[in-house]
Amino acid sequence: MPDFFLNPLAATCSVRLEKPSPSDKRADKERLIEALSRCPGEDLPVDIPLDILRELPHTLRERDFCLSPALVFTGDRGTVAALQKTSLYGVALDIGSTNMAASLFELTTGKKVGGQEKENPQTAVGLDVLTRMHAAMGGASEKLHRLLAGGINELLLDLCREHSIVPSDIYVLTVAGNTIMTHFFLDLPVESIPLEPYIPVAHHIGFLSPREAGIAICPHGTVYVFPSVGSYVGGDIIAGILSSGLYREEAPSLLVDVGTNAEIVLGTREWLMVGAGAAGPALESGISEMGMRAVEGAVYSVEIDRESLAVRVRTLGGGTPKGICGSGMIELVAELFDAGMIDGQGRFTSRAEEAGVVKETGGSKAFIIPVPGGNNLRIKATDINNFLLSKAAMFTFLQVMVQSVGLEFVDVEKFYVSGAFGTGIDAGKAARIGMIPDKDRNAFVLMGNSSLKGAEMLLLDRSLLADIESICRMITYKEMNTDGDFMRLLPGALFIPHTDPAVLKG
Amino acid sequence: MPDFFLNPLAATCSVRLEKPSPSDKRADKERLIEALSRCPGEDLPVDIPLDILRELPHTLRERDFCLSPALVFTGDRGTVAALQKTSLYGVALDIGSTNMAASLFELTTGKKVGGQEKENPQTAVGLDVLTRMHAAMGGASEKLHRLLAGGINELLLDLCREHSIVPSDIYVLTVAGNTIMTHFFLDLPVESIPLEPYIPVAHHIGFLSPREAGIAICPHGTVYVFPSVGSYVGGDIIAGILSSGLYREEAPSLLVDVGTNAEIVLGTREWLMVGAGAAGPALESGISEMGMRAVEGAVYSVEIDRESLAVRVRTLGGGTPKGICGSGMIELVAELFDAGMIDGQGRFTSRAEEAGVVKETGGSKAFIIPVPGGNNLRIKATDINNFLLSKAAMFTFLQVMVQSVGLEFVDVEKFYVSGAFGTGIDAGKAARIGMIPDKDRNAFVLMGNSSLKGAEMLLLDRSLLADIESICRMITYKEMNTDGDFMRLLPGALFIPHTDPAVLKG
Repeated sequence: MPDFFLNPLAATCSVRLEKPSPSDKRADKERLIEALSRCPGEDLPVDIPLDILRELPHTLRERDFCLSPALVFTGDRGTVAALQKTSLYGVALDIGSTNMAASLFELTTGKKVGGQEKENPQTAVGLDVLTRMHAAMGGASEKLHRLLAGGINELLLDLCREHSIVPSDIYVLTVAGNTIMTHFFLDLPVESIPLEPYIPVAHHIGFLSPREAGIAICPHGTVYVFPSVGSYVGGDIIAGILSSGLYREEAPSLLVDVGTNAEIVLGTREWLMVGAGAAGPALESGISEMGMRAVEGAVYSVEIDRESLAVRVRTLGGGTPKGICGSGMIELVAELFDAGMIDGQGRFTSRAEEAGVVKETGGSKAFIIPVPGGNNLRIKATDINNFLLSKAAMFTFLQVMVQSVGLEFVDVEKFYVSGAFGTGIDAGKAARIGMIPDKDRNAFVLMGNSSLKGAEMLLLDRSLLADIESICRMITYKEMNTDGDFMRLLPGALFIPHTDPAVLKG
Repeated sequence: MPDFFLNPLAATCSVRLEKPSPSDKRADKERLIEALSRCPGEDLPVDIPLDILRELPHTLRERDFCLSPALVFTGDRGTVAALQKTSLYGVALDIGSTNMAASLFELTTGKKVGGQEKENPQTAVGLDVLTRMHAAMGGASEKLHRLLAGGINELLLDLCREHSIVPSDIYVLTVAGNTIMTHFFLDLPVESIPLEPYIPVAHHIGFLSPREAGIAICPHGTVYVFPSVGSYVGGDIIAGILSSGLYREEAPSLLVDVGTNAEIVLGTREWLMVGAGAAGPALESGISEMGMRAVEGAVYSVEIDRESLAVRVRTLGGGTPKGICGSGMIELVAELFDAGMIDGQGRFTSRAEEAGVVKETGGSKAFIIPVPGGNNLRIKATDINNFLLSKAAMFTFLQVMVQSVGLEFVDVEKFYVSGAFGTGIDAGKAARIGMIPDKDRNAFVLMGNSSLKGAEMLLLDRSLLADIESICRMITYKEMNTDGDFMRLLPGALFIPHTDPAVLKG
């Protein structure tokens, strides 16, 4: 027995229909609908599409009036999507600007049967969202849509192949992405979004037919698109809030999702405030030359011996280091600082220079991580400066957010960390350099991809549709970068850990 | 000002949207939906299809945030079917087994702008429904569907051409037909219908997308299919009841629709009983050799001079007589009887034979209607017998129906006559030969095509959807031909006017 009540967006229900007789001349359709109304929990009006109706008389009689139809639920209605099905699949999808991640679930058991990650094919047009928006405004918008939709259909096909099912076995796709990605996915014009006052085409999309969405799953299945609340508060954040559960808690909690933008949610079951601002790419994909996303070969953990200054790194996958990811960068700066190799302003100390691990290369000093049998990693002084700017922005966002509602970090009960950044971050070290408040280790919840998790949860529990609606109603948005407090507080946070370490207290 | 409140299935509503500003950053979609909610009478949730959303940002700004969208209402929802429309069209369609009839309306004014009639192309497969059902069971069902759908699309195109509009100007099609025609229209299998216990695939279809229904109108428009209640109580009868209004009256009324089958409705605002039975083709398309439907050239009125026995006929269109239709046949038999040319059993009298207007032709006696410059019309003794069988069946249906609920003809307030038969019938003459009860002339309401009228009414007043639902709930069905009373009472009705003239009293 599952430890939660399974209430998925698509389900089967075995029914035995009363057989027609001279005293019961109801039509096949009305007979099936009446039988379905006796299924536990099925209190929605049910539609039967015409092409399913066409099969109904034959299938009913062939199976002696016993059926297990597949029902797809789209908010206030159910649809018979197939007459006889014993297993149904659903896919949750997070469309990130850089990466798309999908999970495949068997919906009658609620079991996750697989997952896949794939680069967003739009990166061929531009690595960041702004470049793509400009390309769209220059006429590439159909191309951008086709790239994305094609990539998603391929991702679905890959999942199907890997798990020996066919696309028509998939009855539901739940999709979470930021406002821009959602527009590209739906082929909605993005032209008004980058211009004052930043107006998207639509916030609430809800359920679409696969045909309308251009997605190759069961034609009578459904595609659910998470709503956005503003240009900077997309479906990915809504899904993230859903998966954290912070909108149901009494005490205030923080949720941080770090990518190129830092998105911060602060709230309780009574109010939610979302802030977003540019934190720079340093936190997601590390730093310019050596920076990379948290994929195989990325350095994610760094230790420096305080005596010998010997460096020990760990890479994802365990192989040769190819670059350094966001969490690796946090550890590196924390270790460099604790080993006395950089000062509070991030400058290499004489100790570091004398140890010979800092070299002048191309007119700039760089810390060298030796890679036997490969290219050494060179972390330049400017990389460290960029990183400190990002960490300062991050901390200041949190500080401004919490202070703006008259709270302090000690009032924040849970600190949810999401995003590529949130898979393997060492909260202690992040706090050590003053990027996040210095709270008890138990306060931190590393969520991984919280947007994907929200999409997964909805797949298995359609009652969360109501939660999504109330999350949207509860949210107020706070613009961060243009905030006066932000500009005033940022400089202090550029220091390691901070010019006023007391503000870190959590 | 129109003399009724126009509440059509598709409407436009002019809205001026609030413009976006830094303090109002709602998305275009939510902005439009909020503006539409301020239209008078629009209290339904409104959907905007994806491809309309794609045009929204551009159209909104081009028109400076003033729009007149076309809204299509499908029961519990509205859909924005176009962003800017000042005139909208709708078509009401009656699919008869023999004939299809359509009316074109401009929905913003409620004005009927045209109409067309066309033979049901399925007659190429079989003149009557039974032949077509057998053909369908022998594999011709797709062909039958294609013939019908093709014919309907042609009919729509003809209407468009005639009134200089394009199919995408049509936003709604309301369709009424008997249960079999409805199945053929929707390509639903008819196999179970002719077999005990006569089970159709579906009674309630409701609103379909034009794509699903295979109908070439505006893709975001809708096709509404009148529900049926049983194999013999189709959408045409429901639409007929709707147009008569008898379901809203306190006193009992009768509605008769005569085709190959006679369909009779008896009821009040509290109950409705429908009976159907085979009345023979004599009432719809006249009689075997000379019979024809009520189209140009058909004799619809007959007078016989009581002295000279000279015959004077009137034809539809005023031209040369080509045959005789149902109402012509009623008048002919009434006149022959009143002129003493046939007796109470329908046999030619010696008076007729002596006058030389009855001739022996092909081993059978026939009454000759001379046609100068054309072929004389010959009405054979067997034709008159067949006609008397039909009139007897008709009267007995009415009698059984009324008696079965403990009423008499005097209790019946209105007598609605529908069908091809009901366009030009002389109720006095029909009563004279004992085909219908002998009621006051004011009691009779000749409705023409009541099924088409019902479809027209719904087009202009969507509140009638609730009426349709209650009509369906109120109906009980009475099988006529197999009724014991029918068999007992029929023989008396074969006589002109009746063996017991007192039963005709109404």
